[in-house]
Amino acid sequence: MAVYTDITDEELTLLLADYDLGAPLTFKGIAEGVENSNFLLETEKGRFILTVYEKRVREDELPFFLGLMRWLADKGYPSAAPVRDRAGETLKRVRGKPCVLVEFLTGLSVRRPSAAHCREAGEGLARLHLAGEGFPMRRENDLGQAAWAPMFARLKGAADDLKPGLSGLIEGDLERLAAAWPTGLPEGIIHADFFPDNVFFQTGKFSAAFDFYFACWDALAYDIAVALNAWCFEADGSFNITSARAMLTGYEAHRPLSQAEKDALPALAHGAAMRFFLTRLADWGATPAGALVKPKDPLEYERKLAVHRSAPDLLVFG
Amino acid sequence: MAVYTDITDEELTLLLADYDLGAPLTFKGIAEGVENSNFLLETEKGRFILTVYEKRVREDELPFFLGLMRWLADKGYPSAAPVRDRAGETLKRVRGKPCVLVEFLTGLSVRRPSAAHCREAGEGLARLHLAGEGFPMRRENDLGQAAWAPMFARLKGAADDLKPGLSGLIEGDLERLAAAWPTGLPEGIIHADFFPDNVFFQTGKFSAAFDFYFACWDALAYDIAVALNAWCFEADGSFNITSARAMLTGYEAHRPLSQAEKDALPALAHGAAMRFFLTRLADWGATPAGALVKPKDPLEYERKLAVHRSAPDLLVFG
Repeated sequence: MAVYTDITDEELTLLLADYDLGAPLTFKGIAEGVENSNFLLETEKGRFILTVYEKRVREDELPFFLGLMRWLADKGYPSAAPVRDRAGETLKRVRGKPCVLVEFLTGLSVRRPSAAHCREAGEGLARLHLAGEGFPMRRENDLGQAAWAPMFARLKGAADDLKPGLSGLIEGDLERLAAAWPTGLPEGIIHADFFPDNVFFQTGKFSAAFDFYFACWDALAYDIAVALNAWCFEADGSFNITSARAMLTGYEAHRPLSQAEKDALPALAHGAAMRFFLTRLADWGATPAGALVKPKDPLEYERKLAVHRSAPDLLVFG
Repeated sequence: MAVYTDITDEELTLLLADYDLGAPLTFKGIAEGVENSNFLLETEKGRFILTVYEKRVREDELPFFLGLMRWLADKGYPSAAPVRDRAGETLKRVRGKPCVLVEFLTGLSVRRPSAAHCREAGEGLARLHLAGEGFPMRRENDLGQAAWAPMFARLKGAADDLKPGLSGLIEGDLERLAAAWPTGLPEGIIHADFFPDNVFFQTGKFSAAFDFYFACWDALAYDIAVALNAWCFEADGSFNITSARAMLTGYEAHRPLSQAEKDALPALAHGAAMRFFLTRLADWGATPAGALVKPKDPLEYERKLAVHRSAPDLLVFG
């Protein structure tokens, strides 16, 4: 939601000299991405997004992310394809920072997904899991279950500041998740942040997924659990079982779930709520007052945690 | 440089229902405009910018600005044309705030204009002055010479904080400007903020001017003085006489200046430097620490003021 890096017309011209994209016609900073600067670029050859990576991105992980984005595009998965320069490189530098040009995606994100959107999103997620098969690089899920207890050890005070007594509840959750965390499920490349604002629709149909900067290797069903939390809760905090069933139906149209995966969904969804609660809690405390980038509310995920804590059978379907 | 208002897909659909623009295909916040929120919108009928006016804009002035933008576009001047809805309205509301849809302009701003760019910009400014002839609405220049002394009365401390002793120099400037301010010059609609970031080029040629939210009725030559300050100083603070001559040559290719206008340029340029120094000084103090929108440096215009103060004949050409 911010442009940190400022690119001059001269720096842009220098960057574009490495590509076969013609002259620039339009260049505008766009308000997308909290950790990157993004620019809309139109050249004589088409439209692109220039992403400039800021401090928080670990540069040694960029080959994994860009390699995956290129792999998915090559498999025909609708996602932002990194553009190769004349030397075949996708990871470039501008103003001393790593950057990439990706193809522009047309589409709109939905704010309040309907059950029909959830079905489409489920299809898009399953297709992503299939398209990722065979991708040769690996990245561990550094925000997976093993990371949560150490993360929370530094956030107990923040939790109690947010809501008195919350830290005890979270510790109980963490113990329960550690004891019952599903293992042995089918694994593969997961998006790990498959939220409505990372998905585009065109005329009501799934048209693209993007923002792969949390992608990693983990249980595929965990990715579904992240999406169920992100897409199927109403604004009033209630879980929309119709939307959840629609998402699973959409998913299973492309990749049927095993019984073990279905059985694991309640614990996975509880854990997925924990992961986003913890990172939002950490960001909440770390954002200076007055910053234009407002951190996302950790209480939204605290409420989702409470739902999963009190109704662990909620996600047992059919 | 910021998106303040957040528009949902549902609010966008509701707004577009009043227009004949088809369904939305792309909608992105763009990092342009400090006082407005701007969004890139692509529909089945074309590309547009949605501008949502934030608190600082006086709503009663919007009919002047939008009327002028529509007038200029109707005269064939290359600028962002406000789009009329089915009822013929350009000023609309979204999320309770006034807004407008304007046609998307293709082009690039230059950061460090060459003399050739200055010549083109001069042509674009003269064409603007001609296109504005006959526009029936009036808006006084509320940041004109009469406003400077009252503005500075509140900023003396800020000036001395910026540079010890500065307030005395500024007061001397203000007295000199009040005594020698040119009158009786040809007047008309001026842009009043004709800076490089409000002008687009395509393949080195002037292609459009935009951001008319300071436009008003004043001496046409004052608009040239604003532009000379904005385009013809080097990064090291020196005045580039070649660029200035190129800008005037470009201007006079469309609208020759009278001798009185030429004679007035040094005082007008001194005053134009004062106007931007004062508003930058005011914004400098009013911006909270840590805000992502960095105010522009008032010292840049303090240095331009010093140039005009010490070399009043600098702008006497030929």
